[in-house]
Amino acid sequence: MKKVVLAYSGGLDTTFCGLYLSKELGYEVHAVLVNTGGFSTEELKAADTKSQKLGIASFTVIDRLEEFYEKVIKFLVFGNILKNQTYPLSVSTERIVQAQALAEYAKAIGADAIAHGSTGAGNDQVRFDMIFQILLPEIEIITPIRDLKLSREQEIDFLKTQGVEMDFEKSKYSVNKGIWGTSVGGAETLTSDQYLPDDAFPTPISKTEAEEISLTFKNGAFIGLNDKDFTHPTEAIQALEKIASPFGIGRDIHVGDTIIGIKGRVGFEAAAALIIIKAHHLLEKHTLTKWQIFWKNQLSEFYGNHLHEGHYLDPVMRNIEAMLLDSQEKVSGKVFVKLKPEHFILKGIESVHDLMSSEFGSYGEMNLGWTADDVKGFTKITGNQTAIYHQINKENG
Amino acid sequence: MKKVVLAYSGGLDTTFCGLYLSKELGYEVHAVLVNTGGFSTEELKAADTKSQKLGIASFTVIDRLEEFYEKVIKFLVFGNILKNQTYPLSVSTERIVQAQALAEYAKAIGADAIAHGSTGAGNDQVRFDMIFQILLPEIEIITPIRDLKLSREQEIDFLKTQGVEMDFEKSKYSVNKGIWGTSVGGAETLTSDQYLPDDAFPTPISKTEAEEISLTFKNGAFIGLNDKDFTHPTEAIQALEKIASPFGIGRDIHVGDTIIGIKGRVGFEAAAALIIIKAHHLLEKHTLTKWQIFWKNQLSEFYGNHLHEGHYLDPVMRNIEAMLLDSQEKVSGKVFVKLKPEHFILKGIESVHDLMSSEFGSYGEMNLGWTADDVKGFTKITGNQTAIYHQINKENG
Amino acid sequence: MKKVVLAYSGGLDTTFCGLYLSKELGYEVHAVLVNTGGFSTEELKAADTKSQKLGIASFTVIDRLEEFYEKVIKFLVFGNILKNQTYPLSVSTERIVQAQALAEYAKAIGADAIAHGSTGAGNDQVRFDMIFQILLPEIEIITPIRDLKLSREQEIDFLKTQGVEMDFEKSKYSVNKGIWGTSVGGAETLTSDQYLPDDAFPTPISKTEAEEISLTFKNGAFIGLNDKDFTHPTEAIQALEKIASPFGIGRDIHVGDTIIGIKGRVGFEAAAALIIIKAHHLLEKHTLTKWQIFWKNQLSEFYGNHLHEGHYLDPVMRNIEAMLLDSQEKVSGKVFVKLKPEHFILKGIESVHDLMSSEFGSYGEMNLGWTADDVKGFTKITGNQTAIYHQINKENG
Amino acid sequence: MKKVVLAYSGGLDTTFCGLYLSKELGYEVHAVLVNTGGFSTEELKAADTKSQKLGIASFTVIDRLEEFYEKVIKFLVFGNILKNQTYPLSVSTERIVQAQALAEYAKAIGADAIAHGSTGAGNDQVRFDMIFQILLPEIEIITPIRDLKLSREQEIDFLKTQGVEMDFEKSKYSVNKGIWGTSVGGAETLTSDQYLPDDAFPTPISKTEAEEISLTFKNGAFIGLNDKDFTHPTEAIQALEKIASPFGIGRDIHVGDTIIGIKGRVGFEAAAALIIIKAHHLLEKHTLTKWQIFWKNQLSEFYGNHLHEGHYLDPVMRNIEAMLLDSQEKVSGKVFVKLKPEHFILKGIESVHDLMSSEFGSYGEMNLGWTADDVKGFTKITGNQTAIYHQINKENG
Repeated sequence: MKKVVLAYSGGLDTTFCGLYLSKELGYEVHAVLVNTGGFSTEELKAADTKSQKLGIASFTVIDRLEEFYEKVIKFLVFGNILKNQTYPLSVSTERIVQAQALAEYAKAIGADAIAHGSTGAGNDQVRFDMIFQILLPEIEIITPIRDLKLSREQEIDFLKTQGVEMDFEKSKYSVNKGIWGTSVGGAETLTSDQYLPDDAFPTPISKTEAEEISLTFKNGAFIGLNDKDFTHPTEAIQALEKIASPFGIGRDIHVGDTIIGIKGRVGFEAAAALIIIKAHHLLEKHTLTKWQIFWKNQLSEFYGNHLHEGHYLDPVMRNIEAMLLDSQEKVSGKVFVKLKPEHFILKGIESVHDLMSSEFGSYGEMNLGWTADDVKGFTKITGNQTAIYHQINKENG
Repeated sequence: MKKVVLAYSGGLDTTFCGLYLSKELGYEVHAVLVNTGGFSTEELKAADTKSQKLGIASFTVIDRLEEFYEKVIKFLVFGNILKNQTYPLSVSTERIVQAQALAEYAKAIGADAIAHGSTGAGNDQVRFDMIFQILLPEIEIITPIRDLKLSREQEIDFLKTQGVEMDFEKSKYSVNKGIWGTSVGGAETLTSDQYLPDDAFPTPISKTEAEEISLTFKNGAFIGLNDKDFTHPTEAIQALEKIASPFGIGRDIHVGDTIIGIKGRVGFEAAAALIIIKAHHLLEKHTLTKWQIFWKNQLSEFYGNHLHEGHYLDPVMRNIEAMLLDSQEKVSGKVFVKLKPEHFILKGIESVHDLMSSEFGSYGEMNLGWTADDVKGFTKITGNQTAIYHQINKENG
Repeated sequence: MKKVVLAYSGGLDTTFCGLYLSKELGYEVHAVLVNTGGFSTEELKAADTKSQKLGIASFTVIDRLEEFYEKVIKFLVFGNILKNQTYPLSVSTERIVQAQALAEYAKAIGADAIAHGSTGAGNDQVRFDMIFQILLPEIEIITPIRDLKLSREQEIDFLKTQGVEMDFEKSKYSVNKGIWGTSVGGAETLTSDQYLPDDAFPTPISKTEAEEISLTFKNGAFIGLNDKDFTHPTEAIQALEKIASPFGIGRDIHVGDTIIGIKGRVGFEAAAALIIIKAHHLLEKHTLTKWQIFWKNQLSEFYGNHLHEGHYLDPVMRNIEAMLLDSQEKVSGKVFVKLKPEHFILKGIESVHDLMSSEFGSYGEMNLGWTADDVKGFTKITGNQTAIYHQINKENG
Repeated sequence: MKKVVLAYSGGLDTTFCGLYLSKELGYEVHAVLVNTGGFSTEELKAADTKSQKLGIASFTVIDRLEEFYEKVIKFLVFGNILKNQTYPLSVSTERIVQAQALAEYAKAIGADAIAHGSTGAGNDQVRFDMIFQILLPEIEIITPIRDLKLSREQEIDFLKTQGVEMDFEKSKYSVNKGIWGTSVGGAETLTSDQYLPDDAFPTPISKTEAEEISLTFKNGAFIGLNDKDFTHPTEAIQALEKIASPFGIGRDIHVGDTIIGIKGRVGFEAAAALIIIKAHHLLEKHTLTKWQIFWKNQLSEFYGNHLHEGHYLDPVMRNIEAMLLDSQEKVSGKVFVKLKPEHFILKGIESVHDLMSSEFGSYGEMNLGWTADDVKGFTKITGNQTAIYHQINKENG
């Protein structure tokens, strides 16, 4: 009997796949749920229960939250990465870590095939397929929903005919929860001109009084909140999310290029991600030199796009990460933030590496480290080539 | 008698310069106020009156608001330029247009020298000097405040001893008003950790009820508000500012690298600039291809920095502008924005050039223009090199 | 009867396609040869004669040499584009102009399909398909060689069984001749470590005595040779090729990334292209500012890659071309070159736009336009931020 | 008595400085010669002898050849850095290592000042001053030649009046020898249109018969020649230089932007540097992915310029080096080169990391790893956005 590893989440699509692979295709199905922070203990238990009705050989949960942080989130923060200057790549990047965990599992158990529930219209199919084909070039990839072009109703019908009755509530929005943000798609996001209503976002707005907090960074990593350091940055992120999301902070709609060339729109709520990236960015403005900031930006934009498009395993990504990591040596200190309804204010920072030290002169105030003549000389020389250019070309047309 | 053209604003520094150049240095002083949108009719009249006490030869106002738009603001919008992703380069870029107008005037009247009131600690000295030295390589540049290292008190004393009594109110903040935003410096902005109090910003917050507006863009230019088109974009900007500034929108503190190498911090309020840039950016996300967006960003970051540093006359700036201009061919349409206290929401857009046309498939929905097999083939080929890389290097360490 | 437009060259593959489309598939075949400079009058006549044996409806030659120059070569020169700093994109870019001419023709005659002779292993299939699918989204694309996976022998057998006897000589190398260079593939180029023998290159080396020539450029375009100006740059290119190719100049092997992800190697001889690009580059070093040179390079590398990969119709290409065009305003003058066996020396340039005017000081000689103190001030300020960085971080670890 | 550390080379300028500092200014002079590979044992001895006539307190030779390699040359190779695609930054980069060694020495002996013999017209003054001001912010920098604006004759006169008679031959060219190349300036290089005569280059051409060699690289470093590995890359470089320079390889004239804004021209001979960089580049084309090559190029161009301009200590340089270093993981193998008079041919490479493995399909040959349909799907999707763009905008103007 051939073995297949199924990327399983407990939702309708992967439930269908489990049953279809075992009953219709006759596979020995090993359902694997890779948790990168989006599943609560209850949800994991529910997925386990659900899986038992599908006639599958095994159900396994693999925890990859810390790996998700170390391999992905860390560099998203170092690079201040917001796709199209808006979207923290909340959910999409989880696929990259999940796919790798699934590939390792498939290899370990000697699977003949690997299956996922992606449709033919989204980005995830590319992310999963690409990583599988790179890490397991010989393995067969099975994608029943995509290949059979099934509708929701057809999937439910199949489950029923196989005696599996489940309650898959049909919600207006497709919601994907993760530690780095929750995406919300459907209805308004399918148009270009409509915004999501307030209640489409996962966290109701319950705080209206401004609240001041501080974030502590060490070598670019967010490690502490309000002067309390955490064992691991993932805990700090979760603690911040809890404080900030009731303000309705970090809600927006991302519009961007899908991997398959069409434009797509997706709503999201990502309070912690937005605050961390903006706070980290501010700390960098104080601690990095002008050209460090410039080149980090140039590379990070490509890095974010390439990651979004599933190219995590291209070695250029490791090269860029080496650069980003090296750039964080002095990015340590505290950032003061004021949370308000639906937005936040970056108040300022405190760092022993702050280059805005008044010891070396203050902008607009009288200087200590240089003279007026120094600046005149600087201006003369730094504008010299352009002056020659205009002189030469005035004379010579 | 030697002629000097003085960059005049009616403030303490340039008033001192006027008197000092005529009385102490014996120049025939021609005071020129280049208005790029920061002076009201009353302020211009007051400057005129003030100038008459200084024993100068002439006082002239040159209106360069439209030129400021055509040469600078237009490209700041095309490039979505926010320095360090925050600051719309509100006031700094006005210097570039002012310096050019002053140089033209100096040339026209055959001036021997050109003077400005910059101190030795800021960016403006570099901007003025560089443009003067490029356009008028032979002219003498005089900067009394910088060279004499004068304090405010010393300037006032000199005016008094010359019989000029004026009321130069000493405010806590140095405020610079312009069409593309108002900068606010002093007190808290001299630290790294303090934020400006609400009343340091020029416009009191008087609106609290959300307001929905629409912005019309044509080939990248903001030309209409709420379906009313304006004769010139500068009018549209001013109309938007009037509606949006009472919300306290567009307030922030910019931290960045000064031209002279230190870090500087400056507060600003720029409601219209922020809304226009973010709305324009959203319209581009719908109408430009992925690589247009990518390359515009790469170039715009440099363009903004180089402009900020006074290098307007480097011909590379014209080359980049040619690229930015060409990129705007299809950036036409309407953007819907909701104004709220201290922030705004980009609701969506409407454009005949919208690439998110549902005619060609919707993200996450079933597609029309391609098949599941197309995507599989795409993934195979687009990941081919990385697959080979891992295959080769797995075998060979 | 359904109409098909066939991209026809007179070679074995397209001859097979012509016969196959008419005899097997029953199409009304319109063979079109788009000449971008690679075909002599004799070759065109031979292709015409050959086509008459294939039972096709029509044979048409479309001359697109000047369009190839205006749309492609011009910008390859402006951008000094050598893929991987070696290959002038000799033949590959012709496909882009050919595909567009074919699409126009197909549209004009109302064709139902368009056919080309590409195999499934090269870059050309992607270039043709992509341009057809963009310009003629509804048209059917037929590629018999790729789809039937035919070998050379099978193609010849089919021709014979249809009564078409032709002499398709089997040469060791596949040679593609064009105005911007001739590519040579096969045998050694299929390995990583072998170089092509001398006689694999098309032009025998017959000149050994050094020869001095001058190239005249106007706004970046190569328009004259040895002080004789030509009516069109394509004539100047051909005249230079005639003089330089007998030196064996411009021979090399290009190694690079194919569109389909594998690495490929191809030999080439492109005397004129290499000399023009290097001479143009030298002229730019004298006439452009530092940042013009920098940004042209950054963009040109992407432009060359994107063009190579068939993305000519992406509007980002037009945006970059606008920038390149604008950068050439002052790139006029003469370049002196010494031709020697297998290499050439760039002797120097002469231009009224030369920024190396001794009027403004000479490198290493005593200066005229600035003082030692100016340079000291410049150094102080330009190194100021790094000095602060080291001071701050020495003190604070 | 105040101590000064003098950057000493034994040439006229620094000999003058030694005598002037001790006799005229009354300093305790510590002459330090930092050898980065440009001085032979005889030359060091001669400098020592010469120094004894100057009344100085000490003469010290510091060997920094290996540091020059580790800090600079290594990254020039990793980045394939040729300034303006021509010049290997032969001599200029030595200053950076020399300045740091001098600063360390000055700190160690508690010097009050540091002196160098730069004039006011070149790049070296900026490189020395900048590194001194960063590493020793409190120290006084003395530059007698620059400040006194001395001519060669004036320097010799002063030496004579102080009883120091030396033979400073006045050669037509200023020649600077180093391990990474020898620069040759003067006469023709002061014009834009003249080339250096053969005998201006340091190594006479004595080899005319082609010679085949192989270079071995390990993780990007050139470590072996003709299958013989060396203890340190500097030895390999010197061995290659000895073999290749008699061919007249690596001669050219570099034209570029000086730090002070004028254009400068300098001849050079750098056989080993040119061969190593081109060979290394070829090996990378076989072993790196497309985007690794692209981003290395984008960063390396800036890195080379910033280094040339003396900004070695900007931390962005360390960040970029981290990226370059990481990119070299698989750049190991052999490169085969054919040396010929005045040029060389890169024959090919051999590497276990070669991505052009025929195992995964050969360019232009029938493929193994993918099907014709895969490529069709790829083309469909990769061209999808541009197709939509043209469809939308055809319909809508």
